[in-house]
Amino acid sequence: MVPHRQAVILLSGGLDSATALAIAQSEGFAVSALSLSYGQRHAIELEAARRIARSRAVARHAVVDVDLAQFGGSALTAAIDVPKDRVPAEMVSEIPATYVPARNTVFLSLALAFAETIGAFDIFIGANALDYSGYPDCRPEYLDAFEAMANLATKAGVEGTQRWRIHAPLLHMTKAEIIRRGTELGVEFASTHSCYDPDPAGKACGACDSCLLRLKGFAEAGLRDPATYADR
Amino acid sequence: MVPHRQAVILLSGGLDSATALAIAQSEGFAVSALSLSYGQRHAIELEAARRIARSRAVARHAVVDVDLAQFGGSALTAAIDVPKDRVPAEMVSEIPATYVPARNTVFLSLALAFAETIGAFDIFIGANALDYSGYPDCRPEYLDAFEAMANLATKAGVEGTQRWRIHAPLLHMTKAEIIRRGTELGVEFASTHSCYDPDPAGKACGACDSCLLRLKGFAEAGLRDPATYADR
Repeated sequence: MVPHRQAVILLSGGLDSATALAIAQSEGFAVSALSLSYGQRHAIELEAARRIARSRAVARHAVVDVDLAQFGGSALTAAIDVPKDRVPAEMVSEIPATYVPARNTVFLSLALAFAETIGAFDIFIGANALDYSGYPDCRPEYLDAFEAMANLATKAGVEGTQRWRIHAPLLHMTKAEIIRRGTELGVEFASTHSCYDPDPAGKACGACDSCLLRLKGFAEAGLRDPATYADR
Repeated sequence: MVPHRQAVILLSGGLDSATALAIAQSEGFAVSALSLSYGQRHAIELEAARRIARSRAVARHAVVDVDLAQFGGSALTAAIDVPKDRVPAEMVSEIPATYVPARNTVFLSLALAFAETIGAFDIFIGANALDYSGYPDCRPEYLDAFEAMANLATKAGVEGTQRWRIHAPLLHMTKAEIIRRGTELGVEFASTHSCYDPDPAGKACGACDSCLLRLKGFAEAGLRDPATYADR
């Protein structure tokens, strides 16, 4: 029996990374998941990541605390209001208040450390450049630069004949395409959580950028969003 | 009065980063320090970092927990023996057991997040390529690749006219040169801690790679090492 190639995925609990996980598995990788607890306002995201990891039977699920909230500077980690009811033009024309400083760089670095210890050379991330809501660290040129750096950074990269690869299979897909592909691969979207500002019961707000992009995606895919939304 | 330019330094508690901090200050930067608690076997390193931050009057000292020990894979974070009494040829001919997977990448990423929140574009690291004890992520080509990635990663880099710079002022210095330069700049080397395997009282072992490089450096500089060593 040929052993599966190992891979690591950054699993946030959202629908993008859940779909990217399913894609990695469909390509034959034995996938381990890494979720980061970075001072989010809510633990609901991590609970969703745990549900998805279980339902997709990942090889291993590591959850690492890294307190980015200590630095401040983002509506996702500090006491800044999450913007609501923005139209798509507003979302892409400026970098939003929900931007977490250097987030994907910190997350990919931790994925690199995790991958190196388990002998994986392939890292998957659910980054998306179309519906990317203005984040600089979701752009293809950024991901290429990270990959180049990774190949100079590590014992495995320096000693081995294998090269690191950063996979971003959703990079050029619309949200509707991601939802359709996830549905084909059996992703349980009811387990995923996208909202930046859920109510105490965990219901999505339906108005933050992330909820709006998700709702638009399901509508364009002609599918029903199984998430529970608070009445507005 | 012209405001100082802000910078961030990765401060480990060792003599290299203490000297790099003094160099950054001598270049006119208002320096904030970042120390990482990454599942080290001993908290002595962090105590040393706190002493140095105080004695050099840094603008701010952030200490962030990130549990790399959860991944395993290094004598510095897991239950692997620290190698002792190696000769210099052994240290440079192979990557040692004390290598922490992707450590500098994780640390520089966190420094980038910290720097972005305080409006700094200059990051200092005490990396050294001569006495570097075999770590791939202390090489100049690695640091250049990180800098290139940082300039694509962040809101500040994308929106601003300023560019990120990774400064490694010790990169091409011998340990003896670092010690001489630190002495000129008034670094309190008695406050620094280098040993990978101190005894319960905090005394250095005098036999791990880090102690051997330090002792050799002081000897070559013709200076007395003020650190306290355990009797052997």
